[in-house]
Amino acid sequence: MKIVLIGASGTIGQAVEKALSTRHQIVRVGRTKGELQVDLAPTESIKRLFEKVTQFDAVVCAAGAARFAPLEKLTDEDFAFSLANKLMGQVNLVRLGMKHINDGGSFTLTSGVLAHEPMPGSAAISLVNAGLEGFVRAAAMELPRGVRVNVVSPPWVSETLKSMGKDPSAGMPAEQVAAAYVAAVEGQQTGQVLSARDFKPK
Amino acid sequence: MKIVLIGASGTIGQAVEKALSTRHQIVRVGRTKGELQVDLAPTESIKRLFEKVTQFDAVVCAAGAARFAPLEKLTDEDFAFSLANKLMGQVNLVRLGMKHINDGGSFTLTSGVLAHEPMPGSAAISLVNAGLEGFVRAAAMELPRGVRVNVVSPPWVSETLKSMGKDPSAGMPAEQVAAAYVAAVEGQQTGQVLSARDFKPK
Repeated sequence: MKIVLIGASGTIGQAVEKALSTRHQIVRVGRTKGELQVDLAPTESIKRLFEKVTQFDAVVCAAGAARFAPLEKLTDEDFAFSLANKLMGQVNLVRLGMKHINDGGSFTLTSGVLAHEPMPGSAAISLVNAGLEGFVRAAAMELPRGVRVNVVSPPWVSETLKSMGKDPSAGMPAEQVAAAYVAAVEGQQTGQVLSARDFKPK
Repeated sequence: MKIVLIGASGTIGQAVEKALSTRHQIVRVGRTKGELQVDLAPTESIKRLFEKVTQFDAVVCAAGAARFAPLEKLTDEDFAFSLANKLMGQVNLVRLGMKHINDGGSFTLTSGVLAHEPMPGSAAISLVNAGLEGFVRAAAMELPRGVRVNVVSPPWVSETLKSMGKDPSAGMPAEQVAAAYVAAVEGQQTGQVLSARDFKPK
């Protein structure tokens, strides 16, 4: 398969590339790095990406920013940024990519455990993650030509916790998180929220 | 209690008013009708509402528009409208109202069954409803002074189906849906998604 991997240089993206690249062709996409660039917020940027990359079988998005801050500190702009990037950015990958993806192809998006296990500061992120899951459940019913869409919900990632100076053992290694993306790309399910806790690296 | 009821003239709003007005003072709010007016999309309109209505104990929102259309027909504007109205409109009721509501007060918002039981055409609405539920779970952890927030998820309402020329027996009577709002206002729970199917009128 030819797989368009957005967020390829990130912690999860690198692990997904490692897990998929032995069997598939990976087109590495980043906001500033990679073979191709995309900014998820402007739809024009996503349109340009799908004009450049042709004949692809899968889109995996392990990117999408959203703002974490106490509820009373979250501004209108924090919500607008989170909605435009992690939420509508990923929604628009499906809306704009569905016309271009090969028959039987798949989209795999990223939500996160805060959708259902919130913490103080996560109001905008919990909204975005849960909203993505609602979109995926619905959009799966309408994708044409056997095209699938799923969303992976990762827990805290060990490597991310370590980079934040926190205990990495409280999280899941990126290699294990990547196993959920592999299952979404290589499997047959659609409209599913795949909890990374349910998957193990092969 | 003094309860600010937004969407008071709607099908659900009327039933909620009937169920609550025997024991509580209701401030009826609508987009064009009611004692006070609010447009959920502009934050300025919500700010003005909370300047006018003072010393209130609960906000119940049974309003909020979102767009239903086939996925390939949903435009950027349809998503933006849905996010600005039903989603961020209700989020902003909490964000802006939390400073004004009395100690121990409550917010009760409205999502809908399409969050978890989608149908073709519901992609934007499913996103909005699920996103609201994610927000409520998270925001509940951070509200001050014992203030609570919950979201009622109504199924299709019989009266709405009837007005659409469909079989009302496939839906739930508004009186029964209203029982979930009563439970949210008069109960002690917070951060919950209340499925209207779990409640019966007293």
